[in-house]
Amino acid sequence: MSGEPTNEAPVEEVSSMSVEEDDDFVDPWTVASKSATGIDYGKLIKRFGSQKVDDELIQRMEKVTGKPVHHLLRRGIFFSHRDMHLILNLYEQKKPFFLYTGRGPSSEAMHLGHLIPFIFTKWLQETFDVPLVIQLTDDEKFLWKDLTLEEAQRLAIQNTKDIIALGFDVNKTFIFSDLQYIGSCPEFYKNMLRVQKMVTFNQVKGIFGFGDSDCIGKISFPAIQAAPSFSSSFPHIFNGKKDVPCLIPCAIDQDPYFRMTRDVAPRMGCLKPALLHSTFFPALQGAQSKMSASDPNSSIFLTDTDKQIKTKVNKYAFSGGGTTTEEHREKGGNCDVDVSYQYLTFFMEDDERLAQIKKDYTSGELLTGYLKKELIEILQKIVGEHRKRRAEVTDEMVQQFMTPRKLNYQY
Amino acid sequence: MSGEPTNEAPVEEVSSMSVEEDDDFVDPWTVASKSATGIDYGKLIKRFGSQKVDDELIQRMEKVTGKPVHHLLRRGIFFSHRDMHLILNLYEQKKPFFLYTGRGPSSEAMHLGHLIPFIFTKWLQETFDVPLVIQLTDDEKFLWKDLTLEEAQRLAIQNTKDIIALGFDVNKTFIFSDLQYIGSCPEFYKNMLRVQKMVTFNQVKGIFGFGDSDCIGKISFPAIQAAPSFSSSFPHIFNGKKDVPCLIPCAIDQDPYFRMTRDVAPRMGCLKPALLHSTFFPALQGAQSKMSASDPNSSIFLTDTDKQIKTKVNKYAFSGGGTTTEEHREKGGNCDVDVSYQYLTFFMEDDERLAQIKKDYTSGELLTGYLKKELIEILQKIVGEHRKRRAEVTDEMVQQFMTPRKLNYQY
Repeated sequence: MSGEPTNEAPVEEVSSMSVEEDDDFVDPWTVASKSATGIDYGKLIKRFGSQKVDDELIQRMEKVTGKPVHHLLRRGIFFSHRDMHLILNLYEQKKPFFLYTGRGPSSEAMHLGHLIPFIFTKWLQETFDVPLVIQLTDDEKFLWKDLTLEEAQRLAIQNTKDIIALGFDVNKTFIFSDLQYIGSCPEFYKNMLRVQKMVTFNQVKGIFGFGDSDCIGKISFPAIQAAPSFSSSFPHIFNGKKDVPCLIPCAIDQDPYFRMTRDVAPRMGCLKPALLHSTFFPALQGAQSKMSASDPNSSIFLTDTDKQIKTKVNKYAFSGGGTTTEEHREKGGNCDVDVSYQYLTFFMEDDERLAQIKKDYTSGELLTGYLKKELIEILQKIVGEHRKRRAEVTDEMVQQFMTPRKLNYQY
Repeated sequence: MSGEPTNEAPVEEVSSMSVEEDDDFVDPWTVASKSATGIDYGKLIKRFGSQKVDDELIQRMEKVTGKPVHHLLRRGIFFSHRDMHLILNLYEQKKPFFLYTGRGPSSEAMHLGHLIPFIFTKWLQETFDVPLVIQLTDDEKFLWKDLTLEEAQRLAIQNTKDIIALGFDVNKTFIFSDLQYIGSCPEFYKNMLRVQKMVTFNQVKGIFGFGDSDCIGKISFPAIQAAPSFSSSFPHIFNGKKDVPCLIPCAIDQDPYFRMTRDVAPRMGCLKPALLHSTFFPALQGAQSKMSASDPNSSIFLTDTDKQIKTKVNKYAFSGGGTTTEEHREKGGNCDVDVSYQYLTFFMEDDERLAQIKKDYTSGELLTGYLKKELIEILQKIVGEHRKRRAEVTDEMVQQFMTPRKLNYQY
C-alpha cells in the first residue's frame, strides 16, 4: 500500500491511509507485524476508524437476543464493528436485515483460519434468523493469481462444499460465485456500475495501493465486492427491495472494501453496511503473520489427516514456553505469543477450562506439550467431523445453494 | 487524450499515441480538426497503423462477392481497414465470420451520422450473409454522462427501434444492451475479465487518455467494448464456438478500442477482429467537427420534420461557394469544404449524377442553392421513410431482436 494521499474527497471514517506507520501492515492481500504478539488491534481500530466491541455492546447483544454471545465475540476475536448498534435497533424493532460474507477461492483446501468468519456467521444467522448471502470471488482470484477462469470457478465449487459442510440452512442461505452469478443477474451488474461511477482511480490507489501498472480488472474489482452489500443485488431474495440493511462479518483486512462501500452508499441512495471485524487467525509460526494457504507449513487444512495435524502442531506451533522444562517451571509460559494457546481461544468452547489452562500455563505448571496435546485433540475432532460432513455434500446440494431463488423470508 | 507514452509493451500497430501532432484530434469522445477540409485521413491511417481501402481491395471485394461494392466504399467513406483481406479469404473458402457494430445511446433521437455504420453494416450482412451483433453501450453512457441507469437503458431501447427500422433481418441479427445482456450471459462477463486481466491502467491511459481522477468504471470500460469481438461472448449464436472471426464496421474514432482488442486477442488465445473504418459524418457547420447529437444545430435528426430539414440545411450547411453569385460563377465552388456536397456523397446513390454535380458546382455553373435543394429532397425522403418504418417498430419486435437466441446459421 502506497500510503500516498488522494486528491479526492477522503473516504469517510479513515483517519489515515497509511498502515505502515507502526510496522503493522494490513491490506486485503497482506498481513504482517514485526511484533511477536502480532497486529496491534487497538491501533488498527483507531486507524480504520471503527468501534471496539466493548462490554456494553456484548451485554446489549445478550439482552436483545436472550442468549449468551458466541465465544469468538466474548474473547475479543470479533473485536471491532461499524454500526452494530443500528443492527440491534432493527432487531429490537423486528425489522429485517441480512448477512453477507465471502471467500476468495484461491486454493483447493480451506484451512482453519478460513473457517472462523463462517463459524461466526452461522451463529449470527441462527441467533438473528436472517438471510445470508456468501460471495465466492472467483473473478478476483482469476485477476490476482496465475489461474484460468475454469480453475478459479472449480475452486469456488470446492470451497462451497466446505462452506456447506459447516451446516448452513439451505432455505436461508444463498451461495454464489461471481463468475456464475454476475452473468445471471442484471441488478448485480447495475450495482457494480453504480459503485464504479462513484470511485476514482485516485481513491482505489489510496485505499488499496493499486498502481499504474496494475490491470484494469484489479482496479475496478472493489466494486464487485461492494455490490452484495445492497439488497437490490439479490432481487430473488428481497423481491426488489432496495433498503434491507446488511451486516458483514469478516476479518479486519477486508475492511478497506467496506469503508469504500460505506463511503459511496449514501450517494447511491443506499444504506451503509454494518460490520463485525475479526482478528486474523495466526500462522502456526506465530502471530506476526496470518495463516496462509500458500504456505502449507503455516496452516492446518480441513483436508489434513489426524497424523498431519499432530505433526504440524508438534513441529511448527510456536511455543510461548521456556526453552527448558526447568526454565518453564520457574518463569512460566507466555500465552500472548503461544500459538497453541491462541488456537485454543478460537476453538475451545469451555470458558472455565480455557481460563484454567491460561492460569496454569502462565504459572509454569502446565508445559507446552500439554497445550499441544489438548489442541491436537480438539483440532482432530473439528477437522475429522468436518471431513465426514464434507464427504456427504453432493453436487446437487451445491446446485441448490447456488441457485438464485426465494429464501424462507417474506419481503 | 494525453499522448503520454506508456511504460508497458506498446499496443501493436500504433505508430504514435499522440493524435495532436498536426492539429487533428481524434478519440472515441472528440473529433476536431483545425483544417476546413477536416481530418487528414491519410495521416490518420499512418498514425493508427491501419491500411487504406485501395482499388485492389475494392476490386477483390467485387470479384469474390460478384456484385458492385456499396457507394460508401467506392467513394472512400469507408476508407481504412485492418485484415479485410483475411475476411475475404475466409469468404472465398466458405468459412464463417460475423459482423459486430454498436452504438452509445446518449440521446433519444439518432442523427444522420449515426446511420452511416448501420447502413453500411446492413449492406455487408446482405452481401456476405453472416450473423450480426449490435452492442448498445448504455453502461458506457451511464458512466460518462449525467444519466441514471434507467434513462440510459430507455435510450438504448429507443435507439434500438431506429436501428430495427433500417430493415435488419431478425433471423440474422442480435441487438443487445449491456445493462441487459451482461447480467444474462456469464460468457460475456468472462471475456470482459479476460481482457481486463491483460490491460493495465498505463495502457488505457496511453490509448484513451484516462487520468487518475477518472472513475474506475471508465477505466475498465474498454474491455466491455472489446468483448463482443469474440464469438464466445454469444454462446446462443455460435453454439460455444470460440474461433469464429469477427469484422467490425465502425467510424475511425472507435479504432482505439479495437487496437487494444487486437493487442490482447492472441494472448487470450482468440482471433483478432478485422475492421472497416469510416470517415466522420461532418457537422452542418463544416468538416472541422463531426455531427453531434449534443449540438442540435449541427445535426439533422431522424425525428426532424421536412420543414426542419429544409431550414437547417438552408441556414447552417456550410457552403463552399462564392460569397456572391458573380464570384461563384467566376471562381466556382469548392466541393472539398461544401457540406451539402459532402452529404450528397454519403446519400446520393447515382454516381453519374453526383459526378455531374461536382463538375458543375466546381465550374461555377451550379449554385449552392441548387446543391441544398437537391440535398433537402434526398434527406426529406430518407428521413421521411425512416420515420414511417420507425413508427411500425413495435415493442414485440424490440423484444425479438434483443432476446438471446439461435440465429439462422449453423455452427
